[in-house]
Amino acid sequence: MTLDVYLSGEIHTDWRERIVTGAEGLDISFSAPVTDHAASDDCGVAILGAEDSKFWHDRKGASLNAIRTRTYIERADVVVVRFGEQYKQWNAAFDAGYAAALGKALVVLHPPEHGHALKEIDAAALAVAETPEQVVQVLRYVLTGELPR
Amino acid sequence: MTLDVYLSGEIHTDWRERIVTGAEGLDISFSAPVTDHAASDDCGVAILGAEDSKFWHDRKGASLNAIRTRTYIERADVVVVRFGEQYKQWNAAFDAGYAAALGKALVVLHPPEHGHALKEIDAAALAVAETPEQVVQVLRYVLTGELPR
Amino acid sequence: MTLDVYLSGEIHTDWRERIVTGAEGLDISFSAPVTDHAASDDCGVAILGAEDSKFWHDRKGASLNAIRTRTYIERADVVVVRFGEQYKQWNAAFDAGYAAALGKALVVLHPPEHGHALKEIDAAALAVAETPEQVVQVLRYVLTGELPR
Amino acid sequence: MTLDVYLSGEIHTDWRERIVTGAEGLDISFSAPVTDHAASDDCGVAILGAEDSKFWHDRKGASLNAIRTRTYIERADVVVVRFGEQYKQWNAAFDAGYAAALGKALVVLHPPEHGHALKEIDAAALAVAETPEQVVQVLRYVLTGELPR
Amino acid sequence: MTLDVYLSGEIHTDWRERIVTGAEGLDISFSAPVTDHAASDDCGVAILGAEDSKFWHDRKGASLNAIRTRTYIERADVVVVRFGEQYKQWNAAFDAGYAAALGKALVVLHPPEHGHALKEIDAAALAVAETPEQVVQVLRYVLTGELPR
Amino acid sequence: MTLDVYLSGEIHTDWRERIVTGAEGLDISFSAPVTDHAASDDCGVAILGAEDSKFWHDRKGASLNAIRTRTYIERADVVVVRFGEQYKQWNAAFDAGYAAALGKALVVLHPPEHGHALKEIDAAALAVAETPEQVVQVLRYVLTGELPR
Amino acid sequence: MTLDVYLSGEIHTDWRERIVTGAEGLDISFSAPVTDHAASDDCGVAILGAEDSKFWHDRKGASLNAIRTRTYIERADVVVVRFGEQYKQWNAAFDAGYAAALGKALVVLHPPEHGHALKEIDAAALAVAETPEQVVQVLRYVLTGELPR
Amino acid sequence: MTLDVYLSGEIHTDWRERIVTGAEGLDISFSAPVTDHAASDDCGVAILGAEDSKFWHDRKGASLNAIRTRTYIERADVVVVRFGEQYKQWNAAFDAGYAAALGKALVVLHPPEHGHALKEIDAAALAVAETPEQVVQVLRYVLTGELPR
Repeated sequence: MTLDVYLSGEIHTDWRERIVTGAEGLDISFSAPVTDHAASDDCGVAILGAEDSKFWHDRKGASLNAIRTRTYIERADVVVVRFGEQYKQWNAAFDAGYAAALGKALVVLHPPEHGHALKEIDAAALAVAETPEQVVQVLRYVLTGELPR
Repeated sequence: MTLDVYLSGEIHTDWRERIVTGAEGLDISFSAPVTDHAASDDCGVAILGAEDSKFWHDRKGASLNAIRTRTYIERADVVVVRFGEQYKQWNAAFDAGYAAALGKALVVLHPPEHGHALKEIDAAALAVAETPEQVVQVLRYVLTGELPR
Repeated sequence: MTLDVYLSGEIHTDWRERIVTGAEGLDISFSAPVTDHAASDDCGVAILGAEDSKFWHDRKGASLNAIRTRTYIERADVVVVRFGEQYKQWNAAFDAGYAAALGKALVVLHPPEHGHALKEIDAAALAVAETPEQVVQVLRYVLTGELPR
Repeated sequence: MTLDVYLSGEIHTDWRERIVTGAEGLDISFSAPVTDHAASDDCGVAILGAEDSKFWHDRKGASLNAIRTRTYIERADVVVVRFGEQYKQWNAAFDAGYAAALGKALVVLHPPEHGHALKEIDAAALAVAETPEQVVQVLRYVLTGELPR
Repeated sequence: MTLDVYLSGEIHTDWRERIVTGAEGLDISFSAPVTDHAASDDCGVAILGAEDSKFWHDRKGASLNAIRTRTYIERADVVVVRFGEQYKQWNAAFDAGYAAALGKALVVLHPPEHGHALKEIDAAALAVAETPEQVVQVLRYVLTGELPR
Repeated sequence: MTLDVYLSGEIHTDWRERIVTGAEGLDISFSAPVTDHAASDDCGVAILGAEDSKFWHDRKGASLNAIRTRTYIERADVVVVRFGEQYKQWNAAFDAGYAAALGKALVVLHPPEHGHALKEIDAAALAVAETPEQVVQVLRYVLTGELPR
Repeated sequence: MTLDVYLSGEIHTDWRERIVTGAEGLDISFSAPVTDHAASDDCGVAILGAEDSKFWHDRKGASLNAIRTRTYIERADVVVVRFGEQYKQWNAAFDAGYAAALGKALVVLHPPEHGHALKEIDAAALAVAETPEQVVQVLRYVLTGELPR
Repeated sequence: MTLDVYLSGEIHTDWRERIVTGAEGLDISFSAPVTDHAASDDCGVAILGAEDSKFWHDRKGASLNAIRTRTYIERADVVVVRFGEQYKQWNAAFDAGYAAALGKALVVLHPPEHGHALKEIDAAALAVAETPEQVVQVLRYVLTGELPR
């Protein structure tokens, strides 16, 4: 079984790379949103034409990104959602809700100090991790039954 | 047709009351989460027993609240999600994602300065309002076809 | 059993009234889009704020109308879609596709000269009528087993 | 990930070829209806026997074509619907509604002058393009995150 | 709880009346196809216009009847399908398959000599009865827990 | 909102009565399996005819009971599953799995010493209670936001 | 695209072979029930133990066969159901209803004299053929757009 | 067709090995929970951090295991659930209910003396076997139509 894992959320640190590298050798197909912040913000107007209004500039981009994110989330077995130290990250929480409603296995990754603010999302998750390495261990266990030594 | 409308999100201002009052006379059944912050935080341990760990204290409460919120969201035709001036409000964004994945009509209510941070959620919505009065007008129009004079 | 019937499509003639009047006495709950053309076009900007661009002016209105039309279509047992003599009426065809994908019983109402252009939609329908009176007879038969004399 | 993309709608210009050619090198599996107009119109009677009535002639053909179109739409991740300069194109709008109800990512392609008539369909779409080249850019961005230079 | 029970199949004996009469006092809402054989056969052409071909005459009628039967089956909690002594009764078997795929509780009613020919349908059923009175007892037990004395 | 609550599991103590009595005044519609053990065991053969084999005697009864239990579980918002001090109670665990797969809000009620053996089921639940009175408090909180004093 | 086609129904003539042979070269994966009549009837007792009662002998076999038939039907894009000259063939009609409720593309194959008795099933089908060769032509057209010369 | 078969339940005997070995040569992809009892119990705390409370120790482990078991069950065509001679095995029954609600083909494997206690689960199954070898014969028959000699 190839496990399909979608890595949602924070795009300013190397947590995705640490998971993908750590999971080498496991039969996992990883996917993620576009993590180039500028491209992600401007894709809509870059392709479909400029907008005077920031609101519609954002709408065009967010809609294009949704083609990718929804397709990947719907195909995923496991959705990992990362909340970082800064920013609102409402789209990460939105993805978590979207994945939960579809019955996906949800894994949440965040520093412990966000625990209270994220309690509803943690409660919908099957695992709450603090480090990318724990997520790798979760995925390894799920696929092979092996625990970290 | 009675329209079922769930009012999700921020619990520190009177926006729900303004919508419910403004919508008097319309055939709408409103629902909402428990908006007593203390009760909402402590319901789990108050009923099911104390916890030493804050994490599990929160888990018990969030899970109890999920019995109510998921039942209401699944029954709703329209889910209104309000983002306020402060706090992380990740559970509001989670509800929005949950509602979107279920195909509910989503209405988002937030001050314009949150527009960029909420662009993915706005893009999943059928209406983005700035005031509770606009939400009332949306609901009145949906049910009666009447526009504000 | 109350039959829920949604009347989609053309808004320039009195076909809805003829069906509703003809069906008096039958246990049917009829619903329809907002049929005030001006209100339907302008509802978005009237409630949620003006737009410079016609495209987004239309987007806002179409999205508001979708709150109503999708809710009604999802609740309907039977969706009647009327194609009239003029206009593109792409939203009528869109509603027909939407209803078909949801497994709704589809009834199409159009003059015979549109038959070839509507063949894919007719093929998805359980009845193709030419007059509102035939639709009434269909609904009466479905509910009571009575045929026209 | 191979992206499954269905190209629905107008069959009188080379827009499909332009998209398929433009997307060479991307991991996309394209599908489309039968675009031979005569075969598409006559397939039913050619295989299953002649009909005296034009209505049933059309019905037989439209039903056969539905075996293909529904299968492809249900398998697709993205449904691109093209509206051209002429004809009613109600089946394109029907496909758009069908895809929308199934939760497919919808991309609409049409000249700007059709904007008002297509506003309900545009509002259900995640991208509205004017040229096939823009659709290619959308698909490239979705798969690779690359923007046009 | 009102139990919705659809009575499908054979229309030449009084088995429906015996069930409805026997179930008086129970909180059941019964539904059934149109059981007037002539009306059921001719409804399509009577309402929507005559056909030269028997095949399309039948198609029009069967499609109209499907508006009723599918609506009722989709609303039912329990679908009772009766196979009588004569005729092919393929539509009864079709209804049984339709109900089974929707996860409805299926009750089959037939004389024991049809057991082998109906073994696939019996295997999909939660009860196989030989008399309408047994069906009444099943429904009474399901609603009240009372067994026949 | 009337909350639909199904009370599954152990039938040898008065836990259901304690919940129903405790919840008086709340807008709840309770349902339950047939709790007359003898009737539940023998309903199949009592209505549909005796069986020589105990296996098929049991099959007939279990299938009849499934008409009731599946209908109620599918209609429920909340499924409460009680595990008592004795017996295998595999059907209680089966109901819990059935409810979980349907996305119902699951509440589990069992003495703490069963915690390890029930850990998979507890992990699928939104509340784990030890007494019927706690279940009443959960239901009261869910409907009214009131906590026990 | 590999088209998954399930061939249901009559097992006493070579219609399946004619379709499979005729479709050589097309990208189709065919499936079918076990067509060895004796094995199909006796599989249950041969594997799971003898039964005194013919009814339960049949039940065991029909249930085993359902493992195969439901798996194949659920995976199929197209379900072809053949009704032959003799026997009740209720399981063919059951499969047709099952496939229709799942939204599969249904193709029915029967001699014209069964038309009236099969009118409800024909009305749920996208093609009604009289010969296996027509079914091959339908499949070829669906996959390639080619019509018979 | 590769048949996906999930082997749920008892982990203290070699029944899975006997099925996998017996099915060699058949086109089956087998999956199973982690069957290392200690790893399965402690995976949660080993990866995500220790817990003082046994209840939450168990919760963390059960939730991690659910990532694997639900993914496999949702992908399976056939779910085989084994009940052994000892232990409560409530999670086996939970899996059976979960699989049944998803419409999976359920095969139950248990010694005959458990028949009465398992009657509700047996009634939801398409086959009830007493030995792993019978399960192999069931799978061989389903895939090839061959009966044991």
